[in-house]
Amino acid sequence: MSDNGSKQKKEHDSIAKEHLLGLTERLYNQFIDEVVPNVSLPSRTKANIEYSEKSDVWVYGDRESERSAKTVKGAFQLLKSAEAVDFLVNNHLDQGRGSTLRELYYISENWGIAKFREQPESDRLIEDLEIITGLQREYFHMRPEEDGATMFGPIKIREETKRGAREIHCQQDIGESGYQIPFNVENIEFLDHDAKFIIAIETGGMYARLIENGFDEKYNAILVHLKGQPARSTRRIIKRMNEELGIPVVVFTDGDPWSYRIYASIAYGAIKSAHLSEFMATPAAKFVGVQPSDIVEYELSTDKLTDKDIAALRSELSDPRFESDYWREQIQLQLDIRKKAEQQAFAGKGLDFVTDTYLPNRLGDMKII
Amino acid sequence: MSDNGSKQKKEHDSIAKEHLLGLTERLYNQFIDEVVPNVSLPSRTKANIEYSEKSDVWVYGDRESERSAKTVKGAFQLLKSAEAVDFLVNNHLDQGRGSTLRELYYISENWGIAKFREQPESDRLIEDLEIITGLQREYFHMRPEEDGATMFGPIKIREETKRGAREIHCQQDIGESGYQIPFNVENIEFLDHDAKFIIAIETGGMYARLIENGFDEKYNAILVHLKGQPARSTRRIIKRMNEELGIPVVVFTDGDPWSYRIYASIAYGAIKSAHLSEFMATPAAKFVGVQPSDIVEYELSTDKLTDKDIAALRSELSDPRFESDYWREQIQLQLDIRKKAEQQAFAGKGLDFVTDTYLPNRLGDMKII
Repeated sequence: MSDNGSKQKKEHDSIAKEHLLGLTERLYNQFIDEVVPNVSLPSRTKANIEYSEKSDVWVYGDRESERSAKTVKGAFQLLKSAEAVDFLVNNHLDQGRGSTLRELYYISENWGIAKFREQPESDRLIEDLEIITGLQREYFHMRPEEDGATMFGPIKIREETKRGAREIHCQQDIGESGYQIPFNVENIEFLDHDAKFIIAIETGGMYARLIENGFDEKYNAILVHLKGQPARSTRRIIKRMNEELGIPVVVFTDGDPWSYRIYASIAYGAIKSAHLSEFMATPAAKFVGVQPSDIVEYELSTDKLTDKDIAALRSELSDPRFESDYWREQIQLQLDIRKKAEQQAFAGKGLDFVTDTYLPNRLGDMKII
Repeated sequence: MSDNGSKQKKEHDSIAKEHLLGLTERLYNQFIDEVVPNVSLPSRTKANIEYSEKSDVWVYGDRESERSAKTVKGAFQLLKSAEAVDFLVNNHLDQGRGSTLRELYYISENWGIAKFREQPESDRLIEDLEIITGLQREYFHMRPEEDGATMFGPIKIREETKRGAREIHCQQDIGESGYQIPFNVENIEFLDHDAKFIIAIETGGMYARLIENGFDEKYNAILVHLKGQPARSTRRIIKRMNEELGIPVVVFTDGDPWSYRIYASIAYGAIKSAHLSEFMATPAAKFVGVQPSDIVEYELSTDKLTDKDIAALRSELSDPRFESDYWREQIQLQLDIRKKAEQQAFAGKGLDFVTDTYLPNRLGDMKII
């Protein structure tokens, strides 16, 4: 059984190698055919972001931009891409290594004139490779700086690590902080679960509150601590659990426009990584709260909306991700009451209110429980 | 054996209750004795921070400030303290619950006129209680928002959780991200270890690098990912491992003045929590790098110092925590070369350079290995 994990790893490495070498092969053949080397890829400007009705996620549209050796700038870009492919194939894929984007920037010191002049260049090149190959950078063993989510709930996983497989039950085998997901969640295999739903939570305080109050046990819920704006690995594991295991997903954040965007990045994708929405978005994810209507109904302790909050809400009124009647009503209500509330404000009604009353009511209305 | 964990928990709860009720008892007795209720505690202004030669850490000096009911402001402070003690004793200690500082702010809605007007008031009150009782807020079951460190290495621990004890070996029983320490590291018991030293690491990328390169196995090192400026729980667990198990501690950060302060907060304490230095500082911790002399010796890829960097370095020249010949030389060198470098810059010399060459050289010179 533990072969499955390493088998999948090998498959992924193989696919990645094929796609990366596909690029250099293309350039090579262009040289042979005496064609000026070039690659076209979707333009990554805001003007080219589209909301795909079909898949319900953000994707890049039809505009393309070209990297071509007919300009010096383009030639440099292609040269750096080739150096990067060489490094990724020979060091990462063939030797089972990995690096951060930051390390890649320093590694390029060894590429002579192809050295990156600044960190963002390195980041953009890896994004290019993601778009050209159609693969997440995790397939090339590129790791991020920040950790992904911790999770806690009735699910048993197997994580493939360099030192062997680890089978971990996310209630029984871990400490109070939960299971820290690895940067590459393709290394996780789901073994078994008893979960009725997944609840993705914005703040550490609320995540700890649900664990302390035994919410996971009482309702058979997998708790995922998003840690604010969720990392790619977080979004990916939520999607995998939803689609591979058929477990519904709800999202519980603070009640302000920045937090609604956290929900949107889980459900619909983020503009920055639009080429990966189909890997990372969970269109079936639903928003629990804090809704503006909850602020009114439960008379939560609030703060006034700032000018930036108001601008963000107005912007959301014309954002296709919030285009439903539900969101228009809620956002309009919030603009009317001019208040926002944190999810931890429920503590004002007692430490058990959120798990005894608010969530059961809300999830009952949503037909989750 | 698993009794030890819960036994210690009960002891801590008992001590906390005694100290907290000590405050309200004092106020009560003052009422009985017809003395205007008052409490004195060390002044928390910068002017009152002293560097204790004796214990090598930052502590508060002799200046005191008084909370007294002779003013309305003072009366309110004492009333809020009493409400907080009531809540902490009855909800946290007697019922085994916990809350975040944020939740406490909302809970005060139920205290009538004693309600907190803003979050910082709640934070300052808990700091007052820490100073008055001489106990870390973890003893009152106050939790922070942010996670502490993850760690990876040859040590086996037992974590006491509400759902029972968890025995976890920090290489064999965990995923690739490591063991996520809980917010209250008093709940951890050290069972066994094979560690020769602890290396506390600033960036996620370098932490992952050391894990991937098997540095923990090769040198019997416990790797601790500080996640930037370390949380209290992180500083506390490092101190405990150093003092209870006698394991040396080294700190490996980027080479810039902000990172030197990360080292200083581990070794000497932070100004903000000076009353807790004796709980959280590890005076025996040593600095590995990146040293300014390493930048020169290894010809690392650098960035120019900004004006803020330069100001911070100059400020450190008169900071008692950096008062040694070693630091003065290093800081002066950095001001001369006008450069800073990240720890991940070692990747420029190859993915294995930091673990094959730099760290063994440096730790050899420091007589750690």
